[in-house]
Amino acid sequence: MNPLDLEEFKRQGYMMIDFLTDYYKNIENYPVLSTVEPGYLTKRLPSSAPFQPESIESILEDVQQHIIPGLTHWMNPNFYAYFPCTGSTAGFIGEMLSTGFNVVGFNWLSSPAATELETIVMDWLGKMLNLPKSFIFSSCDKGGGGVLLGTTCEAILCTLVAARDKKLAQIGKENIGKLVVYCSDQTHSALQKATQIVGIHPQNFRVIKAKGSNLYSLSSDPLLSAILLDVENGLVPCFLCATIGTTATNAIDPIKLLCNVTKEFDIWVHVDAAYAGPVCICPEFRHYIDGIEEVNSFSFNAHKWFLTNLACCCLWVKDHNALTSSLSTYPEYLRNKKSDSKKVVDYKDWQVPLSRKFNALKLWIVLRSYGVENLKNFLRNHVELAKTFEELVRKDERFEIVVPSKFSLVCFRISPSAISTINDGEGYYNGKMMNDEYLVNDVNCKLLDSINSSGKTYMTHGEVEGAFFIRCAIGSTLTEEHHVTMTWKLVQEHASSLLGTLLNSYINKNN
Amino acid sequence: MNPLDLEEFKRQGYMMIDFLTDYYKNIENYPVLSTVEPGYLTKRLPSSAPFQPESIESILEDVQQHIIPGLTHWMNPNFYAYFPCTGSTAGFIGEMLSTGFNVVGFNWLSSPAATELETIVMDWLGKMLNLPKSFIFSSCDKGGGGVLLGTTCEAILCTLVAARDKKLAQIGKENIGKLVVYCSDQTHSALQKATQIVGIHPQNFRVIKAKGSNLYSLSSDPLLSAILLDVENGLVPCFLCATIGTTATNAIDPIKLLCNVTKEFDIWVHVDAAYAGPVCICPEFRHYIDGIEEVNSFSFNAHKWFLTNLACCCLWVKDHNALTSSLSTYPEYLRNKKSDSKKVVDYKDWQVPLSRKFNALKLWIVLRSYGVENLKNFLRNHVELAKTFEELVRKDERFEIVVPSKFSLVCFRISPSAISTINDGEGYYNGKMMNDEYLVNDVNCKLLDSINSSGKTYMTHGEVEGAFFIRCAIGSTLTEEHHVTMTWKLVQEHASSLLGTLLNSYINKNN
Repeated sequence: MNPLDLEEFKRQGYMMIDFLTDYYKNIENYPVLSTVEPGYLTKRLPSSAPFQPESIESILEDVQQHIIPGLTHWMNPNFYAYFPCTGSTAGFIGEMLSTGFNVVGFNWLSSPAATELETIVMDWLGKMLNLPKSFIFSSCDKGGGGVLLGTTCEAILCTLVAARDKKLAQIGKENIGKLVVYCSDQTHSALQKATQIVGIHPQNFRVIKAKGSNLYSLSSDPLLSAILLDVENGLVPCFLCATIGTTATNAIDPIKLLCNVTKEFDIWVHVDAAYAGPVCICPEFRHYIDGIEEVNSFSFNAHKWFLTNLACCCLWVKDHNALTSSLSTYPEYLRNKKSDSKKVVDYKDWQVPLSRKFNALKLWIVLRSYGVENLKNFLRNHVELAKTFEELVRKDERFEIVVPSKFSLVCFRISPSAISTINDGEGYYNGKMMNDEYLVNDVNCKLLDSINSSGKTYMTHGEVEGAFFIRCAIGSTLTEEHHVTMTWKLVQEHASSLLGTLLNSYINKNN
Repeated sequence: MNPLDLEEFKRQGYMMIDFLTDYYKNIENYPVLSTVEPGYLTKRLPSSAPFQPESIESILEDVQQHIIPGLTHWMNPNFYAYFPCTGSTAGFIGEMLSTGFNVVGFNWLSSPAATELETIVMDWLGKMLNLPKSFIFSSCDKGGGGVLLGTTCEAILCTLVAARDKKLAQIGKENIGKLVVYCSDQTHSALQKATQIVGIHPQNFRVIKAKGSNLYSLSSDPLLSAILLDVENGLVPCFLCATIGTTATNAIDPIKLLCNVTKEFDIWVHVDAAYAGPVCICPEFRHYIDGIEEVNSFSFNAHKWFLTNLACCCLWVKDHNALTSSLSTYPEYLRNKKSDSKKVVDYKDWQVPLSRKFNALKLWIVLRSYGVENLKNFLRNHVELAKTFEELVRKDERFEIVVPSKFSLVCFRISPSAISTINDGEGYYNGKMMNDEYLVNDVNCKLLDSINSSGKTYMTHGEVEGAFFIRCAIGSTLTEEHHVTMTWKLVQEHASSLLGTLLNSYINKNN
């Protein structure tokens, strides 16, 4: 066996390119949301690994027969669930190159190009976002710079550990039970998970309600009240996670106002712009991160809405020493003169794992293959498509927009008024006593199930202040205007059918 | 711009396959360890991203001109540093497929095949390792099973969080300061880092000295003493990390004996077999993990010595509820009926990040493409090559083996006796007063620098009980017998030259 026979490598490599080209070509023929049932694959595959080698041909046949039916097709242009995970030729090619080199760039020495290209690309991106100099390696000698991690979860975990240890250095490690973390009820669950992991007491995870009247953004007043109360109770405010583009509704936390509050208490502020970050390279959106010079760290996912195949999270910090003093280890077997000199970046100390791929290649090739201008237009196009979809929703009076769309997420639902026509006034529905809110939520939930079961689209839901709504997150690489308009027609058809059925059952019940 | 134009995708895909084929073809012509100096790349690349797109041709030209010189070539057959990071056609093809699908399998619903194939492949591998049924999904209804993470660091972090929270559930979260973690001084730094991250007090990180007389494996007696002392002091023993194949010398901690000690104190035992794990699929090596039925969790890296390109860590746990009760979050936007039913695996709750690639594809394709028999032979071949190298070292009386090789790592150095001939008896060396140990270490360090500077090989060092030695970690995919024998000749030549120079300088000094 030669596991890297070059003729075979070439043959199989070409074959895989052909396979994926066919996959993309046919992608609209597959149901967007997989229709398999739990346990489907165990029934189809052997229960142990083969003793003898199998051919790539038979493996790919199995992929076609057994794996593809079990995929939910994130690359399908009619995928509008969660947030998009955009892929591109450049992102794919970059991942191939990094996988092929298979270098492990944990410190500078283990592959200098991996570290150096990462610092360069993070500076490129930082400049595209017009980040303050304090975050840019080449413009700052105070420890600012960027790093590529896998996900926002890791970015939040790493910065939270840094913030925790900074505080504990002041108040003593035995006081970990006093540290408090702040966020809104719209903040991503990544923060809750990170708080659990780093050992901060769950009682000190402070979730502040974001109100609809404020478009679900975190207000500085309740934050200040919460902080003051904690301080009064002898607790120590430590970390705030602000979000630009929350998951449910794309709410935007006001960075400047929040920093005005946190400054006095020396709270580490992290800005999570996982999805909406990239669009801030367009001047007309840059104001959403105004005040970023006040925060300690900032991150977004290039794999979400920036054409860089999974996984790629960009994190910038103002003071990398805070990160590295929490995350560095320097065992004998990794000692080397370059690291000893402290004149090189050793990214192992900026992240959780030791090992790391040469991830910068992927992002570098994306930036160069498309160029800044095209990337801006790519993002703007999705924002335009979201506007188109939002206008279509507004034109149909049975529907309502839950929160006006700012980026490329549209939050909508069948409006209570459209449903009230099928409410019998006594709150009965499906034989159960209902209040109106339950009824409205239930109908919208049924609508979502109905459109997703069609196989022609996949959307997910959100909930604010008890109201269930449907999220149409536009941004998949292949999505064009006709997909969006066809999808809206589909929603309308399913709504008509659903509302009609309900009306019929109401009429039947009352006759 | 169409970032996924299919003709272009195909053209660039083929081009990348050709590029990598050429890279592998020429890989022995590049210096194994990169010779660039810090900052080299900043001087060669522009300081901001291009406004307009650039062609893949010009990007690949830059890769050839500017990136490749900055690589340390882990795929070079003469790479013997750290541990190998093996790549293969199957591993590469699998990563392509997963990158092309670009699905995000955080829960079952988001791509059922990603979750289901992962449970199947983990069972396949578990059976190959003859793991007890308590770790195998299909043979166990008590919560055992496996998951693919990125790295051992993550595996240790996740299990440590689970162990911490299990204990804290008994003694109260306010007692986090009482928890103690145990390991030997040979344990990988991943444990120290994980301990830092989860908020266990650094004073409670108990490092027990492993002795040369015991081949650097952790003995149960000092472990028991340490535990008893901690208990006496009101502390709470929580976690032990045992290692099969430590980084420095491939020491093997005796699982059964250690578990006899830990059982009484209900300590979570994790076995880190990051590098040596795969070889335990061969019956003649399986005894090294005897006693595995007693532990809570077990992990190894398929990207190290199992042909699965970076990154791929396999973790098995006996009770996944311990993991998920620490790591799960269930925000509204991820709620779905399948997860509600609790009849599916949602891997997001077995790991740190939310997002995850379809990683099982890579490992599945490796297992199928090579088959169990070939994989065993692949591993055995490296063990044989290590024996060959070890015998060559033993035949040259200037050298000594520091610890007998068990797997494919050879630890050697120029022996003190060879160096004593150039010691002038008064402990002078290079004009400085030296003790013998310093002298021996310095000469070996110089030898390592010398062979690495040749560009023809890359090895790294280890240190035990104050003695510096050279590690030759055989296992790169392309390494054949002639590479190993040529490398040994290189070591001999450099040693002759170095010892000759030292002798000359001694003679000159004494004339």
